[in-house]
Amino acid sequence: METSKETLEVGKKLVDLCKKGQNMKAVDTLYSSEIQSEEPMAMPGMPSHVEGLEAIRRKNTDWEQSMNVHSMEVAGPFPLGDRFAVHYKFDATNKKTGERMKGEEVGLYTVKNGKIVKEEFFYTM
Amino acid sequence: METSKETLEVGKKLVDLCKKGQNMKAVDTLYSSEIQSEEPMAMPGMPSHVEGLEAIRRKNTDWEQSMNVHSMEVAGPFPLGDRFAVHYKFDATNKKTGERMKGEEVGLYTVKNGKIVKEEFFYTM
Repeated sequence: METSKETLEVGKKLVDLCKKGQNMKAVDTLYSSEIQSEEPMAMPGMPSHVEGLEAIRRKNTDWEQSMNVHSMEVAGPFPLGDRFAVHYKFDATNKKTGERMKGEEVGLYTVKNGKIVKEEFFYTM
Repeated sequence: METSKETLEVGKKLVDLCKKGQNMKAVDTLYSSEIQSEEPMAMPGMPSHVEGLEAIRRKNTDWEQSMNVHSMEVAGPFPLGDRFAVHYKFDATNKKTGERMKGEEVGLYTVKNGKIVKEEFFYTM
C-alpha cells in the first residue's frame, strides 16, 4: 500500500506542531470537521469515542489545563497508505492529584482530502 | 473502544518474543493461517502486500539472512480495541551492501479469536 505524498505532508506538519506544543494549531489547520477520535478508555467527563472539532478542542484544553508537562518526545510520522503513526513519550504531573505519570503511546491518524479525519490512540494505563 | 484481555495478552506475548529475537516462534504460535501483511513499499522479491504463513515466514527468514542486527528496541504493546501497536527501533547492517541503517517503525496488529490476522508496518525509508 503506497503512501500518498499528501498523507506524509500532513503527518510532517502534525509532528512539527506537536513538537512545538502547538497542538491546538494542529487541530485548527490539519483536522477535518468530521474528525473522529478513539481512545482505549473513557476519562472523567470524556467518552472514549468523540466526534467533531469542538469535542477535540475540549480534549486538548482539558489536557493542557489539567497536566503539567515536563517533557514530550514526538517521533514520526510513520506512514502507510492513507494513514500515519506517531510515537509519543511523555512525563507529566496531574495538577490536581500531584500524581506524576511517565508514559508512551501511539497515535494513528487517517488522512482524507488533505485533512485528518480520524485519530486513534493506543496505550495502557 | 475497550481493549479485550485477549488482545493485550497476544500483544504481550509478541513483544516478549520479539525482545528475545524469537520472531519465528511468534509467527508459529501467535499468527493465524489467514494472516495478511502490509508494508508501505515493495522490497526486491517481496510485494508490499502478502498473505499466509508461508509468505510471512519467508519475510522473517529474508530479514534474518540479509541483515546483521546490532540492536533492536521493542516497546509496547499499546492496545486499542482488537488491535495493538508496537514501536521498533533498530540498528542493522545489510550484509550484502554493507549499508548500516538506523530506523524506527510502528507495527500495528489486529487480533481475532486469539490470533494475529493482520500486521501493518508504518515507516519511511
